[in-house]
Amino acid sequence: MFVKALFLALWIGILFSAGPAVADDPTAADVQTHLDYVWTLIAAALVFFMQAGFALVEAGFTRAKNAVNIMMKNLMDFSIGTLGFWAIGFGLMFGASLGGWIGTSGFFLSDYSPGGDPWVLAFWMFQVVFCATAATIVSGAMAERTKFVAYLCYSFVISAFIYPIFGSWAWGSLFNGSGWLEKLGFIDFAGSTVVHSVGGWAALAGTLVLGPRIGKYDAQGRPRAIPGHNLPLAALGVFILWIGWFGFNPGSTTAGIKDIAWIFVNTNLAAAAGVVGALVTIWSIAKKPDLTMTLNGALAGLVGITAPCNNVSPASAVMIGLVAGVLVVLSVLFFDRIRVDDPVGAISVHGVCGVWGTLAAAIFNIEGFTLGQLGVQALGAAAAFLWTFPTAYLTFRIIHATVGLRVSPEEEMDGLDLGEHGESAYPDFALVAGMPAGAVPKGPAGGKAYAPASKPAHAKG
Amino acid sequence: MFVKALFLALWIGILFSAGPAVADDPTAADVQTHLDYVWTLIAAALVFFMQAGFALVEAGFTRAKNAVNIMMKNLMDFSIGTLGFWAIGFGLMFGASLGGWIGTSGFFLSDYSPGGDPWVLAFWMFQVVFCATAATIVSGAMAERTKFVAYLCYSFVISAFIYPIFGSWAWGSLFNGSGWLEKLGFIDFAGSTVVHSVGGWAALAGTLVLGPRIGKYDAQGRPRAIPGHNLPLAALGVFILWIGWFGFNPGSTTAGIKDIAWIFVNTNLAAAAGVVGALVTIWSIAKKPDLTMTLNGALAGLVGITAPCNNVSPASAVMIGLVAGVLVVLSVLFFDRIRVDDPVGAISVHGVCGVWGTLAAAIFNIEGFTLGQLGVQALGAAAAFLWTFPTAYLTFRIIHATVGLRVSPEEEMDGLDLGEHGESAYPDFALVAGMPAGAVPKGPAGGKAYAPASKPAHAKG
Amino acid sequence: MFVKALFLALWIGILFSAGPAVADDPTAADVQTHLDYVWTLIAAALVFFMQAGFALVEAGFTRAKNAVNIMMKNLMDFSIGTLGFWAIGFGLMFGASLGGWIGTSGFFLSDYSPGGDPWVLAFWMFQVVFCATAATIVSGAMAERTKFVAYLCYSFVISAFIYPIFGSWAWGSLFNGSGWLEKLGFIDFAGSTVVHSVGGWAALAGTLVLGPRIGKYDAQGRPRAIPGHNLPLAALGVFILWIGWFGFNPGSTTAGIKDIAWIFVNTNLAAAAGVVGALVTIWSIAKKPDLTMTLNGALAGLVGITAPCNNVSPASAVMIGLVAGVLVVLSVLFFDRIRVDDPVGAISVHGVCGVWGTLAAAIFNIEGFTLGQLGVQALGAAAAFLWTFPTAYLTFRIIHATVGLRVSPEEEMDGLDLGEHGESAYPDFALVAGMPAGAVPKGPAGGKAYAPASKPAHAKG
Repeated sequence: MFVKALFLALWIGILFSAGPAVADDPTAADVQTHLDYVWTLIAAALVFFMQAGFALVEAGFTRAKNAVNIMMKNLMDFSIGTLGFWAIGFGLMFGASLGGWIGTSGFFLSDYSPGGDPWVLAFWMFQVVFCATAATIVSGAMAERTKFVAYLCYSFVISAFIYPIFGSWAWGSLFNGSGWLEKLGFIDFAGSTVVHSVGGWAALAGTLVLGPRIGKYDAQGRPRAIPGHNLPLAALGVFILWIGWFGFNPGSTTAGIKDIAWIFVNTNLAAAAGVVGALVTIWSIAKKPDLTMTLNGALAGLVGITAPCNNVSPASAVMIGLVAGVLVVLSVLFFDRIRVDDPVGAISVHGVCGVWGTLAAAIFNIEGFTLGQLGVQALGAAAAFLWTFPTAYLTFRIIHATVGLRVSPEEEMDGLDLGEHGESAYPDFALVAGMPAGAVPKGPAGGKAYAPASKPAHAKG
Repeated sequence: MFVKALFLALWIGILFSAGPAVADDPTAADVQTHLDYVWTLIAAALVFFMQAGFALVEAGFTRAKNAVNIMMKNLMDFSIGTLGFWAIGFGLMFGASLGGWIGTSGFFLSDYSPGGDPWVLAFWMFQVVFCATAATIVSGAMAERTKFVAYLCYSFVISAFIYPIFGSWAWGSLFNGSGWLEKLGFIDFAGSTVVHSVGGWAALAGTLVLGPRIGKYDAQGRPRAIPGHNLPLAALGVFILWIGWFGFNPGSTTAGIKDIAWIFVNTNLAAAAGVVGALVTIWSIAKKPDLTMTLNGALAGLVGITAPCNNVSPASAVMIGLVAGVLVVLSVLFFDRIRVDDPVGAISVHGVCGVWGTLAAAIFNIEGFTLGQLGVQALGAAAAFLWTFPTAYLTFRIIHATVGLRVSPEEEMDGLDLGEHGESAYPDFALVAGMPAGAVPKGPAGGKAYAPASKPAHAKG
Repeated sequence: MFVKALFLALWIGILFSAGPAVADDPTAADVQTHLDYVWTLIAAALVFFMQAGFALVEAGFTRAKNAVNIMMKNLMDFSIGTLGFWAIGFGLMFGASLGGWIGTSGFFLSDYSPGGDPWVLAFWMFQVVFCATAATIVSGAMAERTKFVAYLCYSFVISAFIYPIFGSWAWGSLFNGSGWLEKLGFIDFAGSTVVHSVGGWAALAGTLVLGPRIGKYDAQGRPRAIPGHNLPLAALGVFILWIGWFGFNPGSTTAGIKDIAWIFVNTNLAAAAGVVGALVTIWSIAKKPDLTMTLNGALAGLVGITAPCNNVSPASAVMIGLVAGVLVVLSVLFFDRIRVDDPVGAISVHGVCGVWGTLAAAIFNIEGFTLGQLGVQALGAAAAFLWTFPTAYLTFRIIHATVGLRVSPEEEMDGLDLGEHGESAYPDFALVAGMPAGAVPKGPAGGKAYAPASKPAHAKG
């Protein structure tokens, strides 16, 4: 009986099989597993692409004289992050857990042995690009004044320790571990807190230790606009991040199942609503529809929907995105005012909107709002801050005290490209006064070179 | 008997299942459905990426002083399009049809209820990026002189009304509706007519209401070349559009089946042939192999193969692309001459080559050519013009009469970046005379600032 | 019995099927086949995207005055390569083999007939983007001085003849042929030799026939640095190449199976290690962490892991990438010194690291090292050189003797954009002395215009 049915199945298989060689006839469950691999890895590739998006947004939003340094940092945080997460981070995040607080196994991918189940490799690939996302967020906030070697040190610490340890609290059970936060019922499907807030609070710590860029504040302490040097590149970066998020959120199923449709739709609606929310807000405040802020609106919507992408309705996704878009503009203006100089708005986009998304997962929960869930969400968001900010602050302090965190004022005014890398990003182009390689402004910091003709209206305060 | 076979299937499934959690053992049909979701949504992500491609092509083909405005428009048409198609457009296009002319249900994704079949979400995601493609085509033709607020109004109207209503005629039955055109046997597999011609004819309407850019025509009415400011970005845009089309055409199966191989190959061959066709044509006419035209040749081939990608042989795809490449060059020169100022060639690429592709689906039909099919194709192409051009023209006239369609001549000469957005795309770069922020040419329109040194030969007439 | 089981299977299928139309109920083997199609074609799309990456790297690493020419070449080699590989190359590579040396059937995709098995189309699509990769490598090495028409001729010859014939020796059996090298047990999973070394040695031949750029060497024959004009674009290109390699290596399974996880991880680890290897090396030598070299380190790691991506452990992948990163820096400096002027380092990245990867497939073989395997690997690498270098050299010599290979010195100094294409890549931007359209330096070659202020330290010799 069984044998005959088996033959039947094989025979049908052979009949229909064509083209590519398949080792032997797979069962439906087998094919589903293969589909899970394919989907998870394609999603990982999309999330990897976000590295290019972050690099372009950061470079586009800052000055030409630092563009080489910025591309270099983004290349390095991914590369060092990959090696650090391979050697240490993955084990701390997903290894057998010590009481829900830290993983203790699987370093250097030792969970995998040739011939064994390769799922750990697919899962690692998806997780390493998430780790690199958390790491790279900080780059933008610390742009235009951080020593290259200091950035390398930081990249290793966040990828190998800070991010993975927090991650183990919320996501450890996805592989081999278990986390105290997830046991409480914390919802963070794709990482509003785990990835974005962690990145955002590390960025805040770094910015505070560094201090603002020369020329960012005038003698009265009022912020000056330092416009980005290449807005088309920045906009391309946002488009790339948007498509990357179609891996980030739906890929967090790590399975090729119907749920991904729902997550795609929510992700896209929230991003679009974030754009509209930011546009309306900055237009009201600054009287002009500013591209920089509107681009950040898209990212704000995306960060906001990251935690709740799998447990809210499409209409709620629109609301979540809209609020995120409003929030990011207000937050950027706020941090500017309190003299936290974040050249790309990373703290607002990832830190603040990450918290918003985490709370929204309770507020708009399709299974009904409960105060208890909101409390757990708030606890998770607070835990991310309480873990990340102090450890990152300490890291930056130690770096500051040893290899040094900030470049010299001369190098900062010349640009980090020459000082750190001996290269210019655009040697064939004539740059405006104060910008070209080698031309150090003679006047005091904040002089003419830093007062662009096209001062956005919202920077008038 | 049945029970035993069922146990067998389950047992095999359990035996082979590994790694990612699958709710319960799926059947082969189940896995096929999952694969359809995965493929459709990845294709949607690729089509989304085309937004970046369109933005880069448009920005690259126009002047530096308008680059912020162009990125902003492309960001906004997608965002407003997403929300408009969610609220209204999808229902008009795919809802229960009123006699094949208009859909009447499914607004705000009301076809979906939690727990129900999420296919509507996957299908919506794929359709919304198509809608946005139609919307964004117009942006290029109207570049460098359109008021930002006017563009926002237009984006909503085309995404929520003009595109979906026509779409319901040809594609309504793909979901819940039915269309009079498809009942006649109209072939438009991926949208040469539905997406591209509709976009192209709306672009024509917009351009006619707007009039040409200042300086485009000299005192004798002869066209002047206004060269694009960043051709590497434009070329990158075309590469991105090309890869996006691998979602656009093969994804239109909305199923992970073998047919996608055939569609991939046809798409790629037609694009390559379009490049060669345009190169040879412009080289003969202008005596130089012009990059701008050749890039448009790739897009022409892609638009041309969009309708017939699934019913012609690979050799026919080469022919279709080749003709499209020739056609686009002649068409661009023709519209230039009759004083229709389309900065990027959108009318030619999408309108004209869209018609060509639609007719080609009959001419090269692998199941044989019939005059009847050609007639239906011509009828469909004509219907697209007769629906889109008047409604779009009326829309632009109403916008013109209310919020205003065109910026002031001063703002146009200064650039829309400063006037509309208070930002400059490239503040660190020295731009050539007449271009920098704030520098309004004193002379008459069409003066020195608009006579570039490197005047392409084909603009000599 | 059989009938009942069949009914059962159908019934389960119908029960679970939802949403997208599937022709009839598929078996698991059927769905696996569909998955293989989907995966192979998505991978092909990713590899296609590498064309954009190569174009950006090449344009970014060279001068603004040649950027149009470079984008044009990259567009054309893909387009001509597509048509040449369709008409001739695929048949020579994968057709019925004449003794393992050359294929003889399947020209113009004649292996496919409508209604037949479309696997040949999916396979062709994946192979055509590989062919184009080999073709485009040469573009970078020959940049800034090659006649456009000469490049078109070369593109056809390598795509239709040189690459496919060598490919048939190593990969012919993947479809219909058989190759003498693969019969010996040669391991080149994704093409360190077949694609990259072939491209690299053709690049070497082209560079030798062309000679160095004007101004590259001073009167004493010492190399001068000619810095790239747009490093952010170049860095974006490397990110695009990196994501493209997630199609290149794992896609070479042409099957949606678990092995792709392993290949993804190895590919990513080697790339990251390549970055670190190159960074450390150039930092030691030049005393500055140079972006250009570090970007090439990523590509070196990727080329190095291409052959052994499926037969080494993740730890070995790190080693392979690290060595490749060191190697590429030393190799670039070496070729610079012996007066082989390769503007982007293509010979080092693809030729030298291609050999390294091919040998590494034996050295780090997870099934154990054998001297015999190493010998076969060395033989394959040598065969690639002995076939490609002479045939490519002859091709370039014939081109030189007929249509001419190199532009005139005046055109070279003016830039190829004006001379070959009558266009400027950046007409709105002020370029630095010697660069703008029309401005021919009056002094001798190698004068001020070619001595950039920001001379990287490693070019001091």
